[in-house]
Amino acid sequence: MKPRQRRTNELWVMEEQSPDMRLSLRISDVLLNVTSRYQDILVVRTGEYGRMMLLDGAIQITERDEFCYSEMMAHVALCSHPDPKQILIVGGGDGGVLREVLRHQNVAKATLIDIDEEVISAAKRFLPSISARLDDPRADVRCEDAMAYITECHDQFDVIIVDSTDPVDFAAGLFKAPFYEDVRRALRPNGMVVAQTESPFTDTDVMVGAYREMASVFPVVRLYWGVVPTYPSGMWTYTIGSKDQDPSLARRPAPEGTRYYSGDVHNACFTLPPFVTDLLTRWQDAPQPEEER
Amino acid sequence: MKPRQRRTNELWVMEEQSPDMRLSLRISDVLLNVTSRYQDILVVRTGEYGRMMLLDGAIQITERDEFCYSEMMAHVALCSHPDPKQILIVGGGDGGVLREVLRHQNVAKATLIDIDEEVISAAKRFLPSISARLDDPRADVRCEDAMAYITECHDQFDVIIVDSTDPVDFAAGLFKAPFYEDVRRALRPNGMVVAQTESPFTDTDVMVGAYREMASVFPVVRLYWGVVPTYPSGMWTYTIGSKDQDPSLARRPAPEGTRYYSGDVHNACFTLPPFVTDLLTRWQDAPQPEEER
Repeated sequence: MKPRQRRTNELWVMEEQSPDMRLSLRISDVLLNVTSRYQDILVVRTGEYGRMMLLDGAIQITERDEFCYSEMMAHVALCSHPDPKQILIVGGGDGGVLREVLRHQNVAKATLIDIDEEVISAAKRFLPSISARLDDPRADVRCEDAMAYITECHDQFDVIIVDSTDPVDFAAGLFKAPFYEDVRRALRPNGMVVAQTESPFTDTDVMVGAYREMASVFPVVRLYWGVVPTYPSGMWTYTIGSKDQDPSLARRPAPEGTRYYSGDVHNACFTLPPFVTDLLTRWQDAPQPEEER
Repeated sequence: MKPRQRRTNELWVMEEQSPDMRLSLRISDVLLNVTSRYQDILVVRTGEYGRMMLLDGAIQITERDEFCYSEMMAHVALCSHPDPKQILIVGGGDGGVLREVLRHQNVAKATLIDIDEEVISAAKRFLPSISARLDDPRADVRCEDAMAYITECHDQFDVIIVDSTDPVDFAAGLFKAPFYEDVRRALRPNGMVVAQTESPFTDTDVMVGAYREMASVFPVVRLYWGVVPTYPSGMWTYTIGSKDQDPSLARRPAPEGTRYYSGDVHNACFTLPPFVTDLLTRWQDAPQPEEER
């Protein structure tokens, strides 16, 4: 009798990157699968990228490629600011960006405000390489609504990093001018804000919209980019608004231990392929519809 | 009676990017599905990236993102070479790289050698925006084995572009030193070769191996990178071997009409994140196993 072929169990997690595109990753384990007050939280162990956290079905962070994102969120602003002492991280409850911020010896205090306590506790429990510095003495971690918190802040931070989820639901306001106005007021005179602004391929409107909104508030606005393999299209943009200094020049050396960021990467990452520049300039030439403002 | 909800037909193509990772794209049509003498050829119409060609299950080219790849394959070598007149393209039967090569007025003749005639005819029929220049008077398109062809060439080409499939089966030899020796002999004194060398995330060994093999043949070898959304991880590398000139400097202006490439992108794309540099230098420090050579 022919023996039945032995087959392994197939366990996969699938992200809908758009209605027409899905990324699937084989997993060996579901480590956490809960619904918090704000979102579904899923932590799995993948074969390709190590442990991974998803929020409402969207991949947020993986152990293997998070350095690409965390480093580019933190170091471009912190290395172009002359003396970044007081830092605010909006979102980022996994702790990856905080870990990078605390590599800078200048930083006296990094305040992290994530609306969802359960994201923070999930990261602490299941993503130790990412969340390691959440208990650092220089870290002030708060679980509250950053949009409300920031309205009370005046002339307080050197760099504000907006490490938000996609602009839907409670995160949508983080990509709009009224929030950037609050951010500007919360920043010191040399201050800078940096935000993740999605992919020019899959989220063109978000990228262009955030750039436009930030440019309506800050005198200097620059977009830079890098690779994040597990984010849609792999090409990810970040937008910096600055009160004063040009953020495209690295003024201070890269901290030790970076794997994606370097001073040279800093100076290269503002070089945009022409199709991205075209996306950013096209809206400036076009008449603005009233309802968009 | 509750009416049955109307559902659309779900038609998807799925690429196995690794045993643990899959990219799925919704398609509206299968335009071609044949097996040539060399490989399976599939052309589909996707919602996300326009028309797309797959060979043996691997995504080769899509209408919407091919400019990222085609431009970076062609223009970096052609803009750093002082006077590129005679070009050889190995593979590239879809015609995308050829189209970019022919943007350069210096180019007198571009010879394209793809082993698979059916890839060329599929591209001509279904991918007109990519294959448009395959019938150009300056193009010499041949369907034969480039590895055999090139052994007969001496001091003949200014730039050779190796636009191969992944290094499996008949394409494996295109990533090895004996082929690069033939390439060197086929190049003129100022000559350069450029090859696509996969992703540092998903094909580390291929990237490092090709770099090492090329460095054993050419005095100047440099690796650069760009984004290709539909390739695994989105981060794609290219390796240039040069007999003489440093390819990391753009010496001639970008041709008109590029969307990814520019002179500034040229000068930025050789800036590697430290983790990529580490991958390339680690093998130089490590003892080489005998069987690898």
